[in-house]
Amino acid sequence: MLNMELQANESTVEETEIAEEPFYLSSGNEQRVFLAAYKRRLPLLLKGPTGCGKTRFVEAMAYKLNKVLTKVSLDKEAGELKAKVSDFSARKSFLVTVPCHEDLTANDLVGRFFLTMDQGAQWVDGPLTKAARYGGICYLDEIVEARKDVTVLLHSLTDYRRVLPLTKKGTVVTPPPSFMLIVSYNPGYQSALKDLKPSTKQRFVALDFDYPDERAEVEVVRRESGCPEGLARSLVAAGRKIRGLKTQGLTEGVSTRLLIYAASLVVEGVPKEDAVRTTLVSPLTDDEHMKLSLLDICRGFDLA
Amino acid sequence: MLNMELQANESTVEETEIAEEPFYLSSGNEQRVFLAAYKRRLPLLLKGPTGCGKTRFVEAMAYKLNKVLTKVSLDKEAGELKAKVSDFSARKSFLVTVPCHEDLTANDLVGRFFLTMDQGAQWVDGPLTKAARYGGICYLDEIVEARKDVTVLLHSLTDYRRVLPLTKKGTVVTPPPSFMLIVSYNPGYQSALKDLKPSTKQRFVALDFDYPDERAEVEVVRRESGCPEGLARSLVAAGRKIRGLKTQGLTEGVSTRLLIYAASLVVEGVPKEDAVRTTLVSPLTDDEHMKLSLLDICRGFDLA
Amino acid sequence: MLNMELQANESTVEETEIAEEPFYLSSGNEQRVFLAAYKRRLPLLLKGPTGCGKTRFVEAMAYKLNKVLTKVSLDKEAGELKAKVSDFSARKSFLVTVPCHEDLTANDLVGRFFLTMDQGAQWVDGPLTKAARYGGICYLDEIVEARKDVTVLLHSLTDYRRVLPLTKKGTVVTPPPSFMLIVSYNPGYQSALKDLKPSTKQRFVALDFDYPDERAEVEVVRRESGCPEGLARSLVAAGRKIRGLKTQGLTEGVSTRLLIYAASLVVEGVPKEDAVRTTLVSPLTDDEHMKLSLLDICRGFDLA
Amino acid sequence: MLNMELQANESTVEETEIAEEPFYLSSGNEQRVFLAAYKRRLPLLLKGPTGCGKTRFVEAMAYKLNKVLTKVSLDKEAGELKAKVSDFSARKSFLVTVPCHEDLTANDLVGRFFLTMDQGAQWVDGPLTKAARYGGICYLDEIVEARKDVTVLLHSLTDYRRVLPLTKKGTVVTPPPSFMLIVSYNPGYQSALKDLKPSTKQRFVALDFDYPDERAEVEVVRRESGCPEGLARSLVAAGRKIRGLKTQGLTEGVSTRLLIYAASLVVEGVPKEDAVRTTLVSPLTDDEHMKLSLLDICRGFDLA
Amino acid sequence: MLNMELQANESTVEETEIAEEPFYLSSGNEQRVFLAAYKRRLPLLLKGPTGCGKTRFVEAMAYKLNKVLTKVSLDKEAGELKAKVSDFSARKSFLVTVPCHEDLTANDLVGRFFLTMDQGAQWVDGPLTKAARYGGICYLDEIVEARKDVTVLLHSLTDYRRVLPLTKKGTVVTPPPSFMLIVSYNPGYQSALKDLKPSTKQRFVALDFDYPDERAEVEVVRRESGCPEGLARSLVAAGRKIRGLKTQGLTEGVSTRLLIYAASLVVEGVPKEDAVRTTLVSPLTDDEHMKLSLLDICRGFDLA
Amino acid sequence: MLNMELQANESTVEETEIAEEPFYLSSGNEQRVFLAAYKRRLPLLLKGPTGCGKTRFVEAMAYKLNKVLTKVSLDKEAGELKAKVSDFSARKSFLVTVPCHEDLTANDLVGRFFLTMDQGAQWVDGPLTKAARYGGICYLDEIVEARKDVTVLLHSLTDYRRVLPLTKKGTVVTPPPSFMLIVSYNPGYQSALKDLKPSTKQRFVALDFDYPDERAEVEVVRRESGCPEGLARSLVAAGRKIRGLKTQGLTEGVSTRLLIYAASLVVEGVPKEDAVRTTLVSPLTDDEHMKLSLLDICRGFDLA
Repeated sequence: MLNMELQANESTVEETEIAEEPFYLSSGNEQRVFLAAYKRRLPLLLKGPTGCGKTRFVEAMAYKLNKVLTKVSLDKEAGELKAKVSDFSARKSFLVTVPCHEDLTANDLVGRFFLTMDQGAQWVDGPLTKAARYGGICYLDEIVEARKDVTVLLHSLTDYRRVLPLTKKGTVVTPPPSFMLIVSYNPGYQSALKDLKPSTKQRFVALDFDYPDERAEVEVVRRESGCPEGLARSLVAAGRKIRGLKTQGLTEGVSTRLLIYAASLVVEGVPKEDAVRTTLVSPLTDDEHMKLSLLDICRGFDLA
Repeated sequence: MLNMELQANESTVEETEIAEEPFYLSSGNEQRVFLAAYKRRLPLLLKGPTGCGKTRFVEAMAYKLNKVLTKVSLDKEAGELKAKVSDFSARKSFLVTVPCHEDLTANDLVGRFFLTMDQGAQWVDGPLTKAARYGGICYLDEIVEARKDVTVLLHSLTDYRRVLPLTKKGTVVTPPPSFMLIVSYNPGYQSALKDLKPSTKQRFVALDFDYPDERAEVEVVRRESGCPEGLARSLVAAGRKIRGLKTQGLTEGVSTRLLIYAASLVVEGVPKEDAVRTTLVSPLTDDEHMKLSLLDICRGFDLA
Repeated sequence: MLNMELQANESTVEETEIAEEPFYLSSGNEQRVFLAAYKRRLPLLLKGPTGCGKTRFVEAMAYKLNKVLTKVSLDKEAGELKAKVSDFSARKSFLVTVPCHEDLTANDLVGRFFLTMDQGAQWVDGPLTKAARYGGICYLDEIVEARKDVTVLLHSLTDYRRVLPLTKKGTVVTPPPSFMLIVSYNPGYQSALKDLKPSTKQRFVALDFDYPDERAEVEVVRRESGCPEGLARSLVAAGRKIRGLKTQGLTEGVSTRLLIYAASLVVEGVPKEDAVRTTLVSPLTDDEHMKLSLLDICRGFDLA
Repeated sequence: MLNMELQANESTVEETEIAEEPFYLSSGNEQRVFLAAYKRRLPLLLKGPTGCGKTRFVEAMAYKLNKVLTKVSLDKEAGELKAKVSDFSARKSFLVTVPCHEDLTANDLVGRFFLTMDQGAQWVDGPLTKAARYGGICYLDEIVEARKDVTVLLHSLTDYRRVLPLTKKGTVVTPPPSFMLIVSYNPGYQSALKDLKPSTKQRFVALDFDYPDERAEVEVVRRESGCPEGLARSLVAAGRKIRGLKTQGLTEGVSTRLLIYAASLVVEGVPKEDAVRTTLVSPLTDDEHMKLSLLDICRGFDLA
Repeated sequence: MLNMELQANESTVEETEIAEEPFYLSSGNEQRVFLAAYKRRLPLLLKGPTGCGKTRFVEAMAYKLNKVLTKVSLDKEAGELKAKVSDFSARKSFLVTVPCHEDLTANDLVGRFFLTMDQGAQWVDGPLTKAARYGGICYLDEIVEARKDVTVLLHSLTDYRRVLPLTKKGTVVTPPPSFMLIVSYNPGYQSALKDLKPSTKQRFVALDFDYPDERAEVEVVRRESGCPEGLARSLVAAGRKIRGLKTQGLTEGVSTRLLIYAASLVVEGVPKEDAVRTTLVSPLTDDEHMKLSLLDICRGFDLA
Repeated sequence: MLNMELQANESTVEETEIAEEPFYLSSGNEQRVFLAAYKRRLPLLLKGPTGCGKTRFVEAMAYKLNKVLTKVSLDKEAGELKAKVSDFSARKSFLVTVPCHEDLTANDLVGRFFLTMDQGAQWVDGPLTKAARYGGICYLDEIVEARKDVTVLLHSLTDYRRVLPLTKKGTVVTPPPSFMLIVSYNPGYQSALKDLKPSTKQRFVALDFDYPDERAEVEVVRRESGCPEGLARSLVAAGRKIRGLKTQGLTEGVSTRLLIYAASLVVEGVPKEDAVRTTLVSPLTDDEHMKLSLLDICRGFDLA
C-alpha cells in the first residue's frame, strides 16, 4: 500500500518562495530581451504553443531578478482580512502568476472591498495590485481568455503613465521601477471573438516561443522523469514526429510535459505501450484513426 | 402494501465512508497506470461512454488506496459554519466526487467566505480545496460541462507547480503528495463549444474506458439484479447488438446500468416485454421506428 | 349573483394531503412497472403528450403507497424559518411535485441558507431534499425545462450511490429506501437545445404514456363534467378526430382536459357552439383556416 | 393658465375600488362563457388585438361579481412591511391586474421574503398570491411577455389540483372557489420565441375578442370624448377603413382608444387635421407614404 | 490663462428650477395639441431626429404650465435617505427628464427600498413616481432604448385607469390631474429589435418634429452663438444642404446644435475651415470620401 | 543584478499631479480648437488610431489649463470611505482619465452608495461626478467600449442643460464652467454593434488625429528612447512603410510607441534584429508570411 499522506501547506501568495533555480534552457536572445525590457520598464507579451516553457521562462527570470519573498509572519489568528498593510511593506519583491479565464474580471485582479463586522469595509488588494504596489512581477497567463475589462485595464499600466487605477477605491497606484507586467497567449487557437485588440498588443514587447530543440528536450525529459537517456531519445523523436501531424488534424502537437509523463510511467513499471497510449495518444485526440496513426509513430520508435 | 420508510442519513462529505470494496472487474492495465500516476502525482483523465464504469473504477482505486474516513464527531449543535479548522486535520484521506454542470464555477470548487454574525466572514473550503488540503482524491465527473473558469483553475494543479490558488482568500494551497486530481469526459457527445482545450488535456494522463466485455457484463448484470444467468446472457447479448446501432441513429448505446434495470424488473415479476420496453427501448429513443427496431432485437433474444 | 368567497387554505408542502383516491384508469402494465421500480429503488421517467394523465398516474400511485401526511402542527408563530428540524422527522412519507422551468436551478430543489437575525445562517431544505430526507416521492414535471445544473444533480441520485449532495452545506443525504425520483417530459416538442442528455436518460426506467382509449375517455369526461353520456361520446369522438390533424399543422392534439371543459360549459348552459369554440378550437390554434376546420369537425358530431 | 395640481392618492392594491360600473357593450355570449367558467373554476384566456376591450371586459365582469374592496385602514405609520396578515382577511374579494413583461418573474407574482430589522425575514405576498389567498380575480395581461417561469407556474393553478405553490416559503396555497385566473394575449404579433406552449394553452377556456361593431364603437367614442355624434361617426368610419389596411403594411389597425383621443382633441379646440394627424396617423406608422394614405382616408371622411 | 473654476451646484431633482423661459420658436399647432392633451390627461409621444428641439419644446411648455419648483430646504445633514415624505408634499409641480438607455429598468423609474440602519427598509420614489405623486410632468427621452419592462409599465398610466402600480411596495399611485407623461423617440434609427410595440404606441397622442425652418434656424444659431448674421446664414444653408445627403450615406443630417458649435468656434477665433471640419464634418462620418463631400459643401458657402 | 525595488506610491485620483509639462508636438490648429471649445464649454471628441497621441494631447492641454492638484492631506486613518466632503472642496481643478470597457457602467462613472457600519449608506462620487463637481476635465478613453447606459448618460452633460443627474441619489450636479468632457474613439475598428449613435456624436466638437509627421516622430523616438538620431530615422522610416501595409492584411499600422520600444531595446544592448522582431513584427501579427514581410522591410532600413 502506498502511503503519501501529509498535511497540505497553505501560504499567502507573497510567501510562495521559489526555493531552487528553475531549470530553463535558453534557446536564443530571449533572456537579453527580457532584461532590457525589465530595465526599460516595458511590458512583455509571450507568444507560443501549450507547454513550450513560457511559464518556466518567467519563473527562471524572476529567480534571476531575485524575486523571492522573505517569509513574513502573518497574524494568522486575526485572519487574512485583518492583515495590516504594514505587514506587506517589509517584503521583498515577488512573482505572481494569474491563469486567466472567461470569468476573470478586472476586480479579481485589482482588488475589492470586504465587509467586516468591526472595521466596516476593508480594501483587499488583488494580485495585480499587490505586484504593482510592492514592485513584483505580475504574469497573466492566457490573457485573451480574460474578460474585456481586464485588457483595457492594462492600458494605463503599459503606456507612459504606468499607473494602476483602483477605480472602486478612487485611488491610483504608481508602481516602483521593479514592477513588471507580463502576459502570454497562444496564437494557435485564437478565434475572432477572442483576440487581443491591436491597441492592446501594441503596448508590449513580444517574444515568440516554441518547443525546445531536440537535444534540450531530451535533457529535460531525462532530468524530470529520471528515465534512461535511450527512452528519452525515443520519446522526443516520436514527439517531434507527432508535432509534424499538426496540419493533418491535430489541434496541437504533443507537449514536452506529456513526454515526461510517458517516461515517468515507464519508470514506474507501466508497459511502454500503455504508457504512450495514455500520454502521447489519448490526451491528443478522440479520433480512432488518428489514435492509430499516433500509436504507429510510437511503434516506429520502439515505444509500443 | 410496501413499507420501506426510514429516516434519511445526512453526513458531511468527509464522513462518507465506502464501507465495502466496490465491485470492479479490471479489463487491462488501467489499475497499474492509475497507481503509477498516483505515485508520480500525475493527474488522470478518464474517457468513455455513459455507464461504462468510470466512477466505479475511481471508487475501487480509492478503496485500494485506503481513502476512507474515520468518523469525526462534528460539533453539530454549533452548525457546519462554525466547524473549527482543527476538526478537519485529524482525518485520514478521502475521495470527493463532483458532478460538473454548466453553472459550476471555480468558487463552488475552491470555497468562499460566509458571513457569520459573531465571527465576521469565515472561509469555507470547497470540495477541491478539501481534497487538496487533506491529501484526498478529487474526481470531477464530466469536466467539460463545468464553466470555463474551472478548467483553467486546474492548470496550476496539473503542471510542475502543483498548487491550488485560493484567489478570494489570497492564499495558495500546496497539497501533500497523496492528493490526486481525476477528471472524466465522454468523447461521444462533445460539441465544438464544449471541449477541453488542448492546453488542458495535455496536462493529464488519459485512460480510455469502454463497456465491459461480454463475460464480465453478464456477471455484473447477474450479480447486481439477482436474476438467473440465462436472462443475464440474453440481456447482455441484446445490449451488445443495440450498441451496434449507434452509427444508425442512436446517440448512445445501452449502458450496463439499463441491462441491470431490465433484469431487476423481471425479477420483480414485470413481464419481459414491459421490462425491456421501459429499460432498453424507451430511455434510448423517442423515434417510433427506432423503438420498433430495438424491440425486434430484444424479441430475437426471447425478451419480448 | 354568484357567491363563492371563502378564505384560502395555506399549508406546508408536507401537510398537503391527497384526501381521496385519485381517479385513474389503468391502460396496461404501468402500475406493475411502477411498483417494481419502487421496490428496486429505480428512478422513473414518464414520457407523453400534454394532459394525458402523467401527473394523475403519479398521484394515484402515491396514494396507493400511502404517501399521505399526518397533519403536523408547525410552530406558526415562530415562522417557517425557525421551524425545528425535529418537527419534520415525525412525519410519514409524501409526494412533492415540482413543475420545472427555465429558471429552476439546483439550489431551488436542494435548498439554501437563509440569513436570520438571531441564529445566523439557517439551512432550509428544498423540495427534492425534503423528499430525499423523509423518504417521499419527488416528481419533477417537464424536467427538460429546468436549468442544466438540475439534470446533472440527479446523477448521484440515480446511479448505485443513490445520494443527494448538498454542496452549499457540504453534506450528503442518503435517502431511505422509500424515496423515489420521478421525472416527466413531452417528446412532442423537444428541440435540440432542450433535451435530456443520454447520460441522464439512461438512468431511468421509462414509461410511455398516451391519451386514454375511447371508452375510458368518455367515462372520464362524463364523470368529471357531470354531462350526459351522449355529449361525452360526441366530444370524445370529435377530440379523437382533431388529434388526427396533428400532422396537418396542429402542434398538439386536444387534451382530455379540454373535452371536460367543453362538457362543463354546456352543463352550465353555454350554447354548444360557444362551448366548443372556446375549448376545442381557440386554445388549439390562432390560424383562421384551422379554426374553421376544427369547427367543421365539431359540427360533424352535432356540437356546433 | 391651467391649474389642475392636486396631491396624488396612494392606496394598497387591495383598496383600489372600482367605483362605478365600467361601461361595456357585449357583443356575443362572452359574458355567459365567463360566468360558466367562473362557476366551474376554469381559467380564462382572452385573445385579441390591442385596445379592443379585453381589460374593460374583465373589469366589467369583476364589477358584476361584486369584486370590490371595502376600504381597510392599514397601519400606515408602521409601513406596509409590517402590515399584519389579519388585516387582509377582513376584506372582500377583488381584481388585480398585472401587465406582463420580459423581466416579470414568478417571484414577482408569488411574493418574496423581505428582511426587516426587528422581525427578521417577513413574507410578502405577490399579486397572484393575494388573489389566490383571498379569492380574487388575477388578470395577467399579455402573458406571453412574461418570463417562462411564470407560465409554468400557472400549471398547478389550472389543472385539477388548483393550488399555488409558494416554493421559497415551502407552502402551498389552495385558493377558495371564488379565485379566478385570467390571462390575455395578442395573436397578432407573437413570434416563435414568444408563444404559449400548447401544454399551457390547453389549460384555458379561450375567448376571442375583436374591435366593437360600428354602432357600439360610435357610442363609445361619443360617450368617452363628449364629442358630437357626427364627429364620432366620421372617426369610427375612418378607423374601420384604416383597419382594412392591416394587410398592406400596418402592423395593427387603429384602436378605439385612438379614436377617442382624436375626438377629445377636437373637443378641446384642436383643428381636425392636427387632431387626426397626431392620433390616427403618427402613432400608427413612421412611413411617410403610409402617413399620406392614412391622411387621405381621414380627408375622405371630412376629417382633414 | 483661462480661469473658470468654480464650485459645482448640486440640487435635488425637485429643486431644479427653470429660471428663465426657454427660447422656443413654434412651427405649427404643436403647442395647442400639447395643451389639449394636458387638459384631457392624454400622454404624448414626440417623434423626430436628433437635436431638432424636442427636449426644448417640453421645457418651454413646462415653463408655460408653471412647472417650476419652490426651493425646499432639505435636511441635508440627515441625508437624502432620511428625507421625510412630508418635505415633498409642500412643493409645487415640476418637470423631470429621464434619458432612457438599455439598462434602465422599471425599478429605476418607479423606486426601490433602501436598507437603512435605524429605520429598516425605506421606500424611495423613482423619478416617474415622483412626477405621478406630485402631479409633475415626466419626460422619458428615447423611450425605445429602455428595457422592455419600462414600456409595459407605462400601460396602466396611459389607458383609462391612469394609475402607477408600485409592485415592490404593493401599492398603486393614482396621480392628480396635473400629472403628464411624455415620451420621445427617433424614427430614423429604430431597428426591428428596438421599436415600440403597437400596443404601446397606440396609447399616445403623437407629435412629429423636424428641424426648424431656415429663418428660425438662422435666428437660433445667431442668438445662441453670438455670431454675425452672415455667418449664421452660411452655416444654416450648408447644414440644410448636408441634410439632403441623408439618403446618400449619412445616417443622420447635421443638427442645429452642431451649427451653433461651428459658429461659436469661429467667434472664439478658430479659423472657419477648422471650425466646420470639427463640427459639420468629423462628427457626422468616419468615411474619408464623405468627409471631402461635406467639406466641399461648406466651401460652397465660403466656410472653408 | 539589477536593483530597482522601491515602494509604490498610492494617491487619490485628485492628488495625481502632472509634475512636468507633457511633451507634445502640435501638428495643426488642434490646440486652438481645444481652447475655444473649453471656453465655450463644448464637449470634445478625439478620433484617431492607437498610439497617435490623443491621451498625450489631453494631458498637455490639461497642463496648459493649470489642471493640477494641490496635495491635499486625506485623513488616511479614517479611510477613503469616511473622507469628508469638505476635504474635496479645497482642491483646484484636475484631469481624470477613464479607460472604457465592456463592463463599465454609468454607476462606475457617476458613483454609488457604500454601506458603512456607523453612518449607514454613504454616497461616493465616481470619476465623472468628481470632475463635474470640482470643475475638472473628464477624459473617457475609447468611449464606444463602454456600456450603452454610459453614452446616454452623457447627453444631459452635452446639450444646453449641461447637468449630470445622479439618479441613484436623486440629485443633479450642475458643473462649474471649468468642467470639460472629452471622449475618444478609434474609427479604425468599430463594428456595427459598437459605434456611437448619431444622437451622441452630434453633441461633440470632433478633432481628427493621426500619426505625427516624419520629422516630429523621429524627434519623439530619439527623445523618449535616448537612441542616436540615425537609428531613430531608420525606425521611423521602417514604421511608415509598415503603416502602408495596412490595406494588405495588417489590422493596424505600427504605433510610435513601438518604435520607441525598439530603440530602447537597442540602447540596452539587444541586437537590432531581436529588437525589431519583438517590437515591430511580433506585436503586429501572428501570420508567418506577414512576419517575414515585416522583417524584410526592417532589413531594408538596415535594422535586421
